This record gives sequence, structure tokens and C-alpha cells, in this order.
Amino acid sequence: MDNPTAAIIIIGNEILSGRTQDTNTHFLCKQLTLLGIVVKEVRVIPDIEETIITTVQTLSRAYDNVFTTGGIGATHDDITAACIAKAFDKELIEHPQALVVLKDFYKDKMNTARQRLARVPMDATLIRNKVSAAPGFQIANVYCFAGIPAVMAAMFAEIAPTLKKGACIFQKTITGPITENTIADELAIVQENNPDIEIGSYPFYHENGDFGLNLVVRGLNKEHLDSVVEQIGQMMRHHGVTPYIE
Amino acid sequence: MDNPTAAIIIIGNEILSGRTQDTNTHFLCKQLTLLGIVVKEVRVIPDIEETIITTVQTLSRAYDNVFTTGGIGATHDDITAACIAKAFDKELIEHPQALVVLKDFYKDKMNTARQRLARVPMDATLIRNKVSAAPGFQIANVYCFAGIPAVMAAMFAEIAPTLKKGACIFQKTITGPITENTIADELAIVQENNPDIEIGSYPFYHENGDFGLNLVVRGLNKEHLDSVVEQIGQMMRHHGVTPYIE
Repeated sequence: MDNPTAAIIIIGNEILSGRTQDTNTHFLCKQLTLLGIVVKEVRVIPDIEETIITTVQTLSRAYDNVFTTGGIGATHDDITAACIAKAFDKELIEHPQALVVLKDFYKDKMNTARQRLARVPMDATLIRNKVSAAPGFQIANVYCFAGIPAVMAAMFAEIAPTLKKGACIFQKTITGPITENTIADELAIVQENNPDIEIGSYPFYHENGDFGLNLVVRGLNKEHLDSVVEQIGQMMRHHGVTPYIE
Repeated sequence: MDNPTAAIIIIGNEILSGRTQDTNTHFLCKQLTLLGIVVKEVRVIPDIEETIITTVQTLSRAYDNVFTTGGIGATHDDITAACIAKAFDKELIEHPQALVVLKDFYKDKMNTARQRLARVPMDATLIRNKVSAAPGFQIANVYCFAGIPAVMAAMFAEIAPTLKKGACIFQKTITGPITENTIADELAIVQENNPDIEIGSYPFYHENGDFGLNLVVRGLNKEHLDSVVEQIGQMMRHHGVTPYIE
């Protein structure tokens, strides 16, 4: 696949301490896959300047797009904008357009903390925040979103049309009440014969005793994918199992 | 804090493609925090040999403990055991004790795929799997668990008593219907005056229009923490807001 690539950086001690279940990764991975952009890596890192700077630099060089969430508010622990500025060797400035947006939103409740929400790295482009005004920003191939899921999603929607899309990644899931071990050898042969198609095997066990296998088949060529799905379906039927395909 | 540290590696294309919401990170972060072990980093990576090897090597050197989830089944995409063996320059062997466990579990349904579930790096220690027999394993400071949440949790429970615990990390959350910007400046002063206490500020917006702030205060000294919580509570009351502390 020569689809565009992406990495996601979740900045937030609250995820690492186990206080909060991160849902931004799942949202972004789903949306990016729909755009044909392949997420190659996700890192969850703490609010530590050095860590943020080196992680952004490393991933910005390695992938076509980098998305960060978290740390762009106005409190002492919101250090993302300052770190990204340092990562790109830029000054942190108060963006005039961001100030206009914030003054218009907060009116007579504008204060110095709210004014800090206008700070972005020099040469960054603002990302509109329809939910709560304080903008995200983009610099080079790095898009910085808020950590609050609703605000993050609104910011992603703003920039999604500007991203370079990749070829559509087709995906089908074949589910059956069968164990992985029963068909592992046959499945390995199908995978070997069809290197352009990615076959992922995900067994599941539910507390009620249900068990089974999800085989996730992905690829860029829909006809080729359908033929692999058909082979796997046949394989399951051969073992007396009716596959459910979606 | 000189508490023991940890990193988590989630191995799985199904997370990166947005098919599956990862919950293992949240579980492990919560459990490790309870043991006084500080999670410093989480990486979600694809089922690619080179990526798994270098990520394990990097994080194993950087942190006291590394936990991996995923990729220890019996299908072609389960390459974790082989990669960890390479990361530590060990042979991949069929572990005699694992074979015994698997034969006992599968009985006359034992087959070559199930036999592969006994493969671990030479010198690895098995981690018992009460749910579905196929063991996880530990080598050096790296613990390799299954990806299925129920199995992962069962494996974690097996090894948790053997981990070196850290000083208890106390945590309180102060919630109030106030915006971050209202108290950002005062909060920064409290943080500056109490460097041993970590104050995280997490605003929230709900779809029904509810908004507010969670201030998460963490530290090793309970009395010191309580006094910081009291200061923040006073601050909120000063702004006409009744804090909810838990």
C-alpha cells in the first residue's frame, strides 16, 4: 500500500494514570481509515516538555501526518502549543485571528487565561473550534487538537477535507463459532497466496461462554478481497461452521 | 517520584484500523497505578516484525517493566513470541510445560496449530492463562499477554503479586461547574507552590450542555495532597462554585 500514513499522539497524564479511557484514538483511527490514510503508530505520552518535543519531531519525520490531542487549554499543564513551537524551532505567538475569535466568544468575560488560548507557534494555521471557540492549529504535517472528544471531533471535521486521501481500503469481517487453532494452518496458506490482502485473526470469548473468531480481511482491490473472503467462507463451511460475513 | 515505571505496547492492526476500541490500555494503567507503578508511555503498533522488535528493545531499556498485549495466538499474524525472542537474541522454543498444559486442555483436539501456542523465547517464564490455557510469558522485564481483554486481565492477575510495587499514589478529583480559564492563573500558583503534587486540569462538555472542570490532584504524601485539595476547594468557593471532591 502506498497510501498516506499517519501517527497519533495522545498527550495526557489522565490516560496514563488510568483515570480516563481514551476514545480519541479509536475515533481518529476509524476516520483516517475511511480516508485511506493508514495509521502506523499511536503513542500516549505524559505532559512532559522533552517527551512531547522529541515524540513530535520523531513522528513528524516518519509519517505523512501527525495528529495530537490534549494540552491546548489555558492551565499550567497545557504545554502542547509551547512544545510544538520548540519542536519546530518557532516562536510561540499570540495569533491575532485567534484573539478576535476568543474576544467575540467570551465578550466581557475575556481574561488573561483566555487570552493564552490564542497562543500558537509562529506560522501555524488555526483550526476552527465550533464547540468552544479556542482553536487548534496546524504546523507542517502536525495537527494539534483539543483532548475533549467532542472538540477534537469538531476540529478533525474542519481539516479532514484538506488531507491527502489514499486509495479506499476495503474491509470485510468473517465471523464464525470456530477456534483460531482449527483453521490456523489453512488460513496461513491463504495469506501466503494472497500477499496483497491482509488477514487479521481475532478470537473472542464472552462471559456468557460464547466464543468464536473474527477474521478481518483488508485490501485495496475489492475483487481480490471478495475472492479471499469467499475462500475463507468455504474453509469455515468445510469445518461445519456457517460464516457470517459483513 | 522514584516509583517503578512501566510502558505498555499494544500490538494490533485491528486497533490502528479503527475496527476495535482498545480497552487493555485503560485496564493496565488503572491496575498499575494501584500498585504504585507509573505508566510513562503507551505505544500502539502494527503486526510488523521490525517494529515490534525495536519497540520492545527501546522500551525495555527505558522502563522498569514493559507489558505487551496481542499477537500470541496460533495464526499467521501472531508474531509476538518470535519477535520478542529476536529482540532478546534468544531462540524460539517449544516450552515443555506449556505443551503439557495445552495437551491437558485440548486432549484429543490437540493439533499442530495448538502446539504452536507452546512457543516462547528460550529462558522465558510462562504466565498462566486460567481462561483458555495458552500461556503468556515473561522474559527479562517484558511481560507478554494475550490481546483478548478477559485473557489479558487473567494473565495480569497472575503476575501482579510478583511486580515490585511503588509508594501508593494518592489521588483526588475536584469537580465543579466552572471553566478552566476562570481559575487558570490561581491554579498555576498553587501548582508552583506545591511541586510535589501533580495537578491536572480536565474540562468537560457534555452533549446536554453540562460543562465543568475535573481537577485531578495526585501525590505520594496524603496530608500534603489534602491541603492542596483544600486550597483548590476554597478557590472554587471563592468563585461561587461548590466543589465536589472524591
